[in-house]
Amino acid sequence: MRIIGIDPGTAIVGWGIVDVEDGRPKAVAYGHITTPAGMYIGERVLLIAEELEKILDEHVPEESAVEELFFSNNAKTAMTVSQARGAILLTLGRFGVTVSGYTPNQVKQSLTSYGRADKHQMQMMVKNILHLPDIPKPDDVADALAVAVCHSFSRKTAGLIGK
Amino acid sequence: MRIIGIDPGTAIVGWGIVDVEDGRPKAVAYGHITTPAGMYIGERVLLIAEELEKILDEHVPEESAVEELFFSNNAKTAMTVSQARGAILLTLGRFGVTVSGYTPNQVKQSLTSYGRADKHQMQMMVKNILHLPDIPKPDDVADALAVAVCHSFSRKTAGLIGK
Repeated sequence: MRIIGIDPGTAIVGWGIVDVEDGRPKAVAYGHITTPAGMYIGERVLLIAEELEKILDEHVPEESAVEELFFSNNAKTAMTVSQARGAILLTLGRFGVTVSGYTPNQVKQSLTSYGRADKHQMQMMVKNILHLPDIPKPDDVADALAVAVCHSFSRKTAGLIGK
Repeated sequence: MRIIGIDPGTAIVGWGIVDVEDGRPKAVAYGHITTPAGMYIGERVLLIAEELEKILDEHVPEESAVEELFFSNNAKTAMTVSQARGAILLTLGRFGVTVSGYTPNQVKQSLTSYGRADKHQMQMMVKNILHLPDIPKPDDVADALAVAVCHSFSRKTAGLIGK
């Protein structure tokens, strides 16, 4: 079972692919899509979709886990990133990849059994679980791998999960 | 010049197509895309994109005007509708349709020279400008035609506009 985890954004979209064998996730590939500063959202979604399609073509994941956006302080940012997320969901759906969404807290609890883990603790968990040589950079990539790992654990407990 | 105006939503996406001749907009077709209540956003964006593609195939607009979402009270709603908007922008971009965004206030000012016009005043303006027999229903359709008309007026004053 191959899973792509995605951390949506407009300037940076983190992605990470893991294979699950005997319930254990192994890192296959990871990286990030970037779009230029100042680009209009209409062009950003096109660029993100194009780059994501290349990744899907190359790695052919069967399921995806996409971080749910959490409204924090900045409504404008939240709404712009949500537009990128919509384009990502459409692109995944078009490829026949099932989509599951996880909130940042669900990801934290899944990886650490402790919802209040800080960013560095989470990144260390990703590194350790996937036996990576280093913490993946930028943070968006570690976050994407984290949500992929979270999905692999959820599948294990719930059987094949829905949404 | 053919313009499609779109009022993004998750349950209802309003759309309206106008042709601009000698600077005057004429209604060509209008309607709305609906998605079932309770549907997951990942499926909604697929359905919206499929229906929008049929409309683009049939009417072949050259430019689009998509209402900008305004954050009001409900962050969750704003972020869900933003995801639909992202999928709409991606679908338009893929068809080579240029995208312009207008805030609700820009649309109001363009149609009424008065930013505080109420919903009914706006709808009457849409009906009158486009010589429609009735106010289009539901509201989302009137809103979509309004943003298309706004774009036709903006093009007139600004020449071919960017974003």
